[in-house]
Order: sequence, then C-alpha cells, then structure tokens
Amino acid sequence: MSIAYYNGKFSSIEEVKIPLTDRAVFFGDGIYEALLAKDGNLHFENLHLKRFYENVKLLGLSFDMDENSLSRLLHDAVNRSGEESAFLYFQLTKFADRRIHACPRSEKYNLLITVTPIPLPSPERKMKLVTYPDLRYGYCNIKTLNLLPSVIASEYAERNGADEAVFCRGETVTECAHSNLFVLKDGIVYTHPKCEKILPGITREALLCECRRLGITRREEAFTREFMYSADAILVTSSTKICSIARSIDGISMPEKSDTAKLICENLHYNFIKFCR
Amino acid sequence: MSIAYYNGKFSSIEEVKIPLTDRAVFFGDGIYEALLAKDGNLHFENLHLKRFYENVKLLGLSFDMDENSLSRLLHDAVNRSGEESAFLYFQLTKFADRRIHACPRSEKYNLLITVTPIPLPSPERKMKLVTYPDLRYGYCNIKTLNLLPSVIASEYAERNGADEAVFCRGETVTECAHSNLFVLKDGIVYTHPKCEKILPGITREALLCECRRLGITRREEAFTREFMYSADAILVTSSTKICSIARSIDGISMPEKSDTAKLICENLHYNFIKFCR
Repeated sequence: MSIAYYNGKFSSIEEVKIPLTDRAVFFGDGIYEALLAKDGNLHFENLHLKRFYENVKLLGLSFDMDENSLSRLLHDAVNRSGEESAFLYFQLTKFADRRIHACPRSEKYNLLITVTPIPLPSPERKMKLVTYPDLRYGYCNIKTLNLLPSVIASEYAERNGADEAVFCRGETVTECAHSNLFVLKDGIVYTHPKCEKILPGITREALLCECRRLGITRREEAFTREFMYSADAILVTSSTKICSIARSIDGISMPEKSDTAKLICENLHYNFIKFCR
Repeated sequence: MSIAYYNGKFSSIEEVKIPLTDRAVFFGDGIYEALLAKDGNLHFENLHLKRFYENVKLLGLSFDMDENSLSRLLHDAVNRSGEESAFLYFQLTKFADRRIHACPRSEKYNLLITVTPIPLPSPERKMKLVTYPDLRYGYCNIKTLNLLPSVIASEYAERNGADEAVFCRGETVTECAHSNLFVLKDGIVYTHPKCEKILPGITREALLCECRRLGITRREEAFTREFMYSADAILVTSSTKICSIARSIDGISMPEKSDTAKLICENLHYNFIKFCR
C-alpha cells in the first residue's frame, strides 16, 4: 500500500497535510530524490543519499539528520508499505513562519517521504520522443522542486502522443524533461557533459560505467539536434525507468536495431535485478 | 488578524493544510498574485485580476471561477481579516491524484488566499541594492510559484546587508528579485522592455504612466550594469512597497538628490493613498 511520512509522522498519502510554513507551497524552496525500491532494497541508495546531501549544501538548507538515520527512516517507510516494488520519493524543504523571499536561517525543516507501488521497469519499453525548447534556469544540476518547465515540456509531449520531451537549448540537446539522454553513433556513446544545464543523473552515471565495462567509447560532450536525428540509437535513463531505447524522435523513426544500444539497456536492467537480490 | 481561504473554506493561516494533490507541493505548478489592501480597497484590483487570468491561460490552468466571483471572494477575505492595511496573496495551482510531471486535464484546481497585516509603504524608504546573476528561466513573464532563483538572490542580498537583489543577465540589468527596476539618467527613465525575461509589474506600468503624465521621456530598453552605476537615480517598484529610491548599488552610493526621482516616487505613493479613499 502507499504510505507517507511528514515531519515525524507516518500516515496514508491522503492524510498528509502540508502547512503554509513549508516553503514548498509558496516558493518550491527545497530538493528531492526519487528512486526504486525492490524487496526492501533501495536502488543506488548510497548515490541518491550522496546527491541529496550535496544538494542540501548547494541550497544551504538546514538538515540535522545524518545519513544513517535518514537511510533507516527511508527503509522503515518502504517496509511499512509492504510493496515488493515501489517508487520511493523524499523531499526536504525550508521552514518559515511567513511568506518572505529571503528565508531567515532556521534550524527547522520539512521532510516528506512517500512510497507508492510501481511496476518494475522493462528493457522492452520503447519511447516516442519530441524535442522542446530548453528554457530552464541555470540551476538544473540541483534537484529542486522548481519543476514547471519540465511539467510544461512533459505536457507538450503528452499532447503530441510522445512519452518524453527532449530539451534543446537552441540547437544543443541537453537532457529530457525527467531523464538523461544518450546518443549512439558509429559505436560511440555521446551525452551532454555535467554542468549547471543538466541533472547529474544516477542512472546516467551507471550507463557510462556500463559503457566503460563493455569497452564502448563514451564522449561527454554537447551535440546538436541534427546529430541526434542521425543517431544509430537514442537511449534515455532515469531512476524509475532505468533505461529505454527511443522508437522515434520528432516523428523520425529510429533504426530498427542497434545491438549495442540493446546490450547497454538490457545490462542496466539486469544490474538492477541483480542489485535487488 | 490574519486569515486564509483554501478550496472553499476560511480559517486561520495556521489551520490551512495543503494535501499532496496540490501540485504546488511537488512542482510549483501554479500562479499567484500579491497586492495591497487598504480600508477594504484592493490596490489595482482590476490589473491584478487581468494579469491573473492571463496567466491562467498562459499555463493552461483550469479555473471556472469568473472574475466577479473571484473579486467577491478576495474582498470577503480582506473584510474578514478586519485589517486596515493588509497584504493580500492568492495562488491557483493544478490538482492531480498522484505525482506525475504531465498533469492530466482536470477540472479540479486549488485556490489559496491569505490576508496578513502589513505596514503602509513609505516613499521615504531608501534601498541598498546588490547585483546578482540572473540565471532564471525563460518564463519570467508568468507569475509562477517557481521562485527559487529569486529566493537565492534575496538571501544573497540579505547576507550582504542589502534590501533587494538586482538581476543581471550577463551585463544586462533585467529587474530585481521581487520588484522591477528603473534608471533615471539625464532626465530620461529607462527600464527593461516587457518580454519573457521580466515580470510585467503592475506598479512598473503605473510608474511609466506617471512619467507620461509628468512629461518625462521613458525608454523601455535594455541597459547595462555600468549604465546603472552611472545613473542619477534608481527606482524600484513592487505591488507591496509601491516605489522606493536606491541609496546604493553594489556599495556605490547614489547621488544624494534627484528631484525627478523623488517626484515620481512620491506621486506613486500619493496615487495609492488617493486610490484608497
């Protein structure tokens, strides 16, 4: 079943009530993480926690719970849900007595956790992609709650019968609305370099590691929309879907078969299953 | 006293509880307006309502309450508070059963209103300003809840003993973290043109009108940080503070006296008092 935790109290998701002292409501002033839980294991738990605490620092948040305590709490939430396969989400936001832009230093914070059932991701999933202008801000490397541009792009994708939007800053492909993107071309895997224009995805890193293991050349460099159109394959990664191959981009069908893309994709899913054993 | 309204129910601000179906919590997926109320009058009510309904369209929100009904509700909230001088805030957000980026079309929405006491703005207020990099997104013309860059800049200003942060996109001055900015130089008033890089402020428009009335040349064109440093005066406008003159920018003191700036500033405050009679 779904379960939630908010500032010290477990409840159902429907029962969670956020007060106006939670700066998520007025400003989106906080960070989050989202990951898969399977049979009580939290996929890439350490990497998610590492990024979370890095983001705490980047936004200058107050958070006095250490990594072990947070980990215990997350496991507790997952165990209480009783779900074999679950989507674990947690967010940390600033606390303030009143609505004011500059939040006075406060030791108080708000911690929200939700656990909801989710089907296991499949390597067979093929995605329809559409490009959308990347008008996002210069803090895309921080996993914040200011997600409106991703919402707008995702709704554009949905209206156009696609599964995900690919952000293009001018003609440069950055990433997707809620996943990272890779292009395979002439045996080389390309992806946008880590910087303030993309989220440093956990599964992005896992894909690059898998390429290294397989002896596939990886290039973390910017590429254009046209280059993407001419790719042999496009791969999309995220913590909840792990890895998917694109079926089409902007209505252009991708080549039917890329054994390399298939291998990378299947291995990432296999690693997930292995991890959860 | 402070008062709040949320989805049909009036309460104290402390009693308002936002469920997770309100997409403010996860995405900042909504818009807001903030204005002054004095003796039951809502300052520039029509202009705020006009912008609000424009933003409803720009974000494709569902909102079936017409302008008259919303106006009655806002007045009701202000009257219930019993405050002579109040800060009226209202926000509209999308509703969704679960956390998903693309929000399925829904006729449901969330409407939050808060009324809190506020001191009357003064034309005597002098502001210390500091510049900060404008890394915001390309939707600054919409008054959304994705306010983190403004929070970051405002906190930088506060840490540096300043009252407000002036955003610079590269070397171009755009606006402030929560107000618009004008530069007076050789008798001409300059401000950034309306586009997706700035919020079309209600008081910004009022200042331009006042300049027209006074026969002062206005230029809505981009200018640089250096140009601002060499200004005869800097004026800052917002709905809650109306108009203030800068005392300094980045530690550089502004010229002691600008009769024109003083006249514009005092007239805007006078118009507010007149409006509320």
